[in-house]
Amino acid sequence: MRILCRFVPASKQTLTPLIGLRSFTTTNRTTSRYRVARSKHVQPGMASATTLKGQPLDRPVLDSLLRRRMFYTPSFDLYGGVAGLYDYGPPGCALLTNMIELWRKHFVLEEDMMELDCTALTPHEVLKTSGHVDKFSDWMCKDPKNGEIIRADHFVEEILNQRLKGNLEARGQQVEEKEVDPAKKKRKVKETKAIKLDDAVVQEYEEILAKIDNYNGEELGELIARYEMKNPNTGVMPEPPVAFNLMFQTSIGPSSNAPGFLRPETAQGQFLNFAKLLEFNQQQMPFASASIGKSFRNEISPRAGLLRVREFLMAEIEHYVDPLGGKKHSRFAEVKDVELVLLNRTTQLSGKTNVETVTIGKAVSDGIVDNETLGYFLARVQLFLKKLGVDQTKIRFRQHMANEMAHYATDCWDAELLTSYGWVECVGCADRSAYDLTVHSKKTGIPLVVRETRAEPLVIEEFAAEVDKKKFGPFFKKDGKAVEAAIAATTQEQRESLAKDLAQNGKIAIEVPGVGNGTVEISKDLLVIEKRTRTEHTREYTPNVIEPSFGIGRILYSLLEHNYWTRATEGNDESRGVLSFPPPIAPTKVLLVPLSGHESFKPIIKHLSHKLRAMGISNRIDDSSASIGRRYSRNDELGTPLGITVDFQSVQDKTLTLRDRDSTKQVRADEATIIKAIQEVVNGEKEWKDIEKELPAFEGQDAEVAIPIR
Amino acid sequence: MRILCRFVPASKQTLTPLIGLRSFTTTNRTTSRYRVARSKHVQPGMASATTLKGQPLDRPVLDSLLRRRMFYTPSFDLYGGVAGLYDYGPPGCALLTNMIELWRKHFVLEEDMMELDCTALTPHEVLKTSGHVDKFSDWMCKDPKNGEIIRADHFVEEILNQRLKGNLEARGQQVEEKEVDPAKKKRKVKETKAIKLDDAVVQEYEEILAKIDNYNGEELGELIARYEMKNPNTGVMPEPPVAFNLMFQTSIGPSSNAPGFLRPETAQGQFLNFAKLLEFNQQQMPFASASIGKSFRNEISPRAGLLRVREFLMAEIEHYVDPLGGKKHSRFAEVKDVELVLLNRTTQLSGKTNVETVTIGKAVSDGIVDNETLGYFLARVQLFLKKLGVDQTKIRFRQHMANEMAHYATDCWDAELLTSYGWVECVGCADRSAYDLTVHSKKTGIPLVVRETRAEPLVIEEFAAEVDKKKFGPFFKKDGKAVEAAIAATTQEQRESLAKDLAQNGKIAIEVPGVGNGTVEISKDLLVIEKRTRTEHTREYTPNVIEPSFGIGRILYSLLEHNYWTRATEGNDESRGVLSFPPPIAPTKVLLVPLSGHESFKPIIKHLSHKLRAMGISNRIDDSSASIGRRYSRNDELGTPLGITVDFQSVQDKTLTLRDRDSTKQVRADEATIIKAIQEVVNGEKEWKDIEKELPAFEGQDAEVAIPIR
Repeated sequence: MRILCRFVPASKQTLTPLIGLRSFTTTNRTTSRYRVARSKHVQPGMASATTLKGQPLDRPVLDSLLRRRMFYTPSFDLYGGVAGLYDYGPPGCALLTNMIELWRKHFVLEEDMMELDCTALTPHEVLKTSGHVDKFSDWMCKDPKNGEIIRADHFVEEILNQRLKGNLEARGQQVEEKEVDPAKKKRKVKETKAIKLDDAVVQEYEEILAKIDNYNGEELGELIARYEMKNPNTGVMPEPPVAFNLMFQTSIGPSSNAPGFLRPETAQGQFLNFAKLLEFNQQQMPFASASIGKSFRNEISPRAGLLRVREFLMAEIEHYVDPLGGKKHSRFAEVKDVELVLLNRTTQLSGKTNVETVTIGKAVSDGIVDNETLGYFLARVQLFLKKLGVDQTKIRFRQHMANEMAHYATDCWDAELLTSYGWVECVGCADRSAYDLTVHSKKTGIPLVVRETRAEPLVIEEFAAEVDKKKFGPFFKKDGKAVEAAIAATTQEQRESLAKDLAQNGKIAIEVPGVGNGTVEISKDLLVIEKRTRTEHTREYTPNVIEPSFGIGRILYSLLEHNYWTRATEGNDESRGVLSFPPPIAPTKVLLVPLSGHESFKPIIKHLSHKLRAMGISNRIDDSSASIGRRYSRNDELGTPLGITVDFQSVQDKTLTLRDRDSTKQVRADEATIIKAIQEVVNGEKEWKDIEKELPAFEGQDAEVAIPIR
Repeated sequence: MRILCRFVPASKQTLTPLIGLRSFTTTNRTTSRYRVARSKHVQPGMASATTLKGQPLDRPVLDSLLRRRMFYTPSFDLYGGVAGLYDYGPPGCALLTNMIELWRKHFVLEEDMMELDCTALTPHEVLKTSGHVDKFSDWMCKDPKNGEIIRADHFVEEILNQRLKGNLEARGQQVEEKEVDPAKKKRKVKETKAIKLDDAVVQEYEEILAKIDNYNGEELGELIARYEMKNPNTGVMPEPPVAFNLMFQTSIGPSSNAPGFLRPETAQGQFLNFAKLLEFNQQQMPFASASIGKSFRNEISPRAGLLRVREFLMAEIEHYVDPLGGKKHSRFAEVKDVELVLLNRTTQLSGKTNVETVTIGKAVSDGIVDNETLGYFLARVQLFLKKLGVDQTKIRFRQHMANEMAHYATDCWDAELLTSYGWVECVGCADRSAYDLTVHSKKTGIPLVVRETRAEPLVIEEFAAEVDKKKFGPFFKKDGKAVEAAIAATTQEQRESLAKDLAQNGKIAIEVPGVGNGTVEISKDLLVIEKRTRTEHTREYTPNVIEPSFGIGRILYSLLEHNYWTRATEGNDESRGVLSFPPPIAPTKVLLVPLSGHESFKPIIKHLSHKLRAMGISNRIDDSSASIGRRYSRNDELGTPLGITVDFQSVQDKTLTLRDRDSTKQVRADEATIIKAIQEVVNGEKEWKDIEKELPAFEGQDAEVAIPIR
């Protein structure tokens, strides 16, 4: 069976749901964008996530900080909230803005990409062609008793894992907490029953779990029935799985005959503008378009915080390249020495997760990464994530297995970031071949191709079939067109053989469904088939597309975890959270703190705030009555890298102290020097250690001195 | 009748549709965001729009330029397009990005606003409370013959205007092209019939047209019936108008019992986060939140290009202020001398459109603008629009008429920009009082208030009513609660009188619907009513909100018209389009042009491109074979302010020429000097006239010398 859309079964042996989320990759759904990595992809020790300083990461504590400091907050909280919808508060929003600005500079500006802003509202027909209408769904079951709606694959996984756990308990063995998809972790279910299973059954269960991503709805239904899986919450078996399309449907315009969807990805608008962009680029190849915008997916039961949401920000690039000539990239040399941590296909096939650190130059020349253009973007993604402040020990590029990829895809790698939820797919980089342009062109009849003058005209020798129009039409009458089309559709091989027939027998037989008995005879006075030579001056081709696709919200969440750590304070039992964002990314750059509420400090603080604003440096005044130490630690939680304290000495000699968030060390200098230091740090030109060397240290009012970590 | 939502009838005399779009103002729909100003608001001469240089503006020519250069393009063009949906292409997208960046700097950073990123998906209940579910609709009619769907008010307007035109023709009078709402302009209708009308009928028609915004659906239906208005396309009368809600509906989650909408504005998410933001701001007032994001409105038949679309970018500010103390603003003094062109309510009431230029300081002190905070934002909006490059002769602030505003609104002003479509409402600034917080608080039961310790405790003397619980309950039995509630609901005036009754008669009579005959007697042994004194230490209040609301797409379109002009060229009949954006806003800053395809130019161009990129200055290389003049004029259409030409002299002595888009003049200097000049112009620190004075002029390769205009 030919697969008509970009989605692909995870295994060619099974009729899989075909629910891949192409925007990140071209894989089936559960191993794609939404996959919070399964245990099989998880490295040993992963379950115990760590902070920036290697401390055990206490997610509930971090989460409480993030909500308290309003990095994010459940949307419509006042009305009880809606699962899978979150608002970003002031620091989260500023972080998002800084991330997007860096993305634009790093990709759009640097590569001279053509950015588009396309609509989220998308008519039915477009997503029908792309395959989303038919295939972009998950299998869900309804519980007949309480009406609960459950994702079928999650349900099977949950029940079997519970039974296996119960078996271990019954055998008196220690139960190891397995890494479970967080989307299933939180469903409230009854306690595990300790029931011993036969060894054969254990093996069956384990085999099913290993293949869980490969079952279609019918198969999941059979598993539920065969193993009598009952919903622990109700004690009854759920109804058979039905497909649930994950797109939000709506109607465009006043009549109901214009169904539409909210886009589940930002790529289609870019593909549809291909011809205009090529024209805009004065017909020059290669080129890339880019788009940043919201996408929408109606998750069945979203959990896992910011990692699995119904409305999310994406940034996608569609880089068009000539499929011939090995997909070289003119700037590959600039990145060839960038080192990446790769988890390749072969390693995964052997059931391992060993990674290797290798330069992208070597990865491409060794054939691990398919081509230079794909390799170039992998390296650029790596450099982008590094600039953002992603922990370099918590990033890997995982290659898709052959059965994860769409049939048309050449190669696909995910940048995965390690978090307390496991390895999270944050950027997908796929070589999607000519698929997308081809389907839209085929559907609309509008060519989406590049035409270029050949340096050397191409001389083609081929079998041509030509009918004698004058005789052909009158002979076949109403069937003429069908017969002619059948002739035109023959391949070169067929024509070669038909030419022989025609020469030997004076006639040929050709299959024309629907005409006569389905086979039509044509004599040589109606048709000539012969080898001819023609010269082609223009080359026409459908470009291939390399698609790096970024889940901005997921990167943002990973960034929060990667930059978080806790600091113990002297004379204080509680440890305090710090978010050590790189200064260029930090939501607020400078905290302005008057020593006290004394009137003489006010004009200085106001002046500094105004001066920094004029330079585009975001700052925040904290003139509350809390202690200096407490005010600083409040802003350490916000990730503010620098702090200025105004004290009585400032009033006298105009000097200021500057404090570093990470070391809590301070320097003291005159205003101009301090402002210059701030600007250099905020622009990423200098680090604190440079400032510390240049300016005199200050030991002062930071009452609660930090205890150095380890 | 109390109006339950933020929308308001345009006239209190009629039962108006109540379809105002609050995000821009609080008015009824047709005079609000979507109103492309009616002729009554149009100043004489408006119909003949002009370019930046005062030339007559040929909109189709401009439009063709904008599409050719991909400022915007109809979405899903390949599939035939969808009315009201447009994509921004590379220059449009860059313009949008620069506008947003300026908006953030000018408002969010400057005012230390708390930016939020809220979801577009919104549950039904939230928009039910806000009033959108019930009232956010237009009246539409269906043609029974061809199924065409028509906006009822537009239809009546169109038919009556046609008849009036036919009357003039029949009388042999010259027909003046009236400025018609563009949404109606493009509907294909048959030619006007020249039929003479009675003078009385003409008067009736004109009165209807003057009041067209005030009719509800039933009234519009009556007008259609009474005057037998037939659809010119079918010759039959449309069906009676029905309300069509303008929100896109969808369903959130897998079960169908969670209806939701795409937000029609970005304000609700901000209101719902009020309490968290107040906490984030450490309980300090005043403060503002801000939000930039897409909103969605399902227009019945969107036309007028970028001015009336179904998906659009908004930027909204919600500034919370204490309703007491005259709504002063601490930074008002900074803007008090900013001059605004005002069209106030009184002038409009007298049927005129005379504007006055006045400082905001005077406007507030004269009571034309209600308060300092509102005035502050009007001035800040003016400054923002000026920085953007809005033509200062094509901007006015129009005050809403009393009947345009919601009952709770204190004052409302729209920043309107003059375009070829007339005056277009681009920014609405409303003082919405405590309305929004109040309705959400009332619905959810969660207080949305500010609590502040009173500097002086407030001593309140008031009549208190207290029942003797021991006797009261047993006496009234099951009616006890109802009677007690009736007592509690009495006003201070009523209590004063009741206290007298109680003292004089030993009993009172009070109305309690549903108890006995509706009047209950209570004797003095059950009840005490007396003057008491209590002390309040904390003040609790619901803040008022001042809401500046920006239609970014509308501003962008106005900016395109305001900065457009055409330049005649020597030896060339055609005149060429120029878009003279201010350099900080221009999509691309620098064009890099090698004199020819000579190899020696390539490394210099590459080096310059790299250097500018590293400085964050967007640039574009045009090494096509077109003439230098043609390459420059192509980029004049894109609004690129500066151009560098690399010629043979550059190869020899490293000097470059720098060209100004607007004057086409050139200077020549070494690379460092040219780059510095570019940086200063792009940052808005210097203008071309400064550069021209500093650097030596160059007369050279710009083959097609421009002819100075006028």
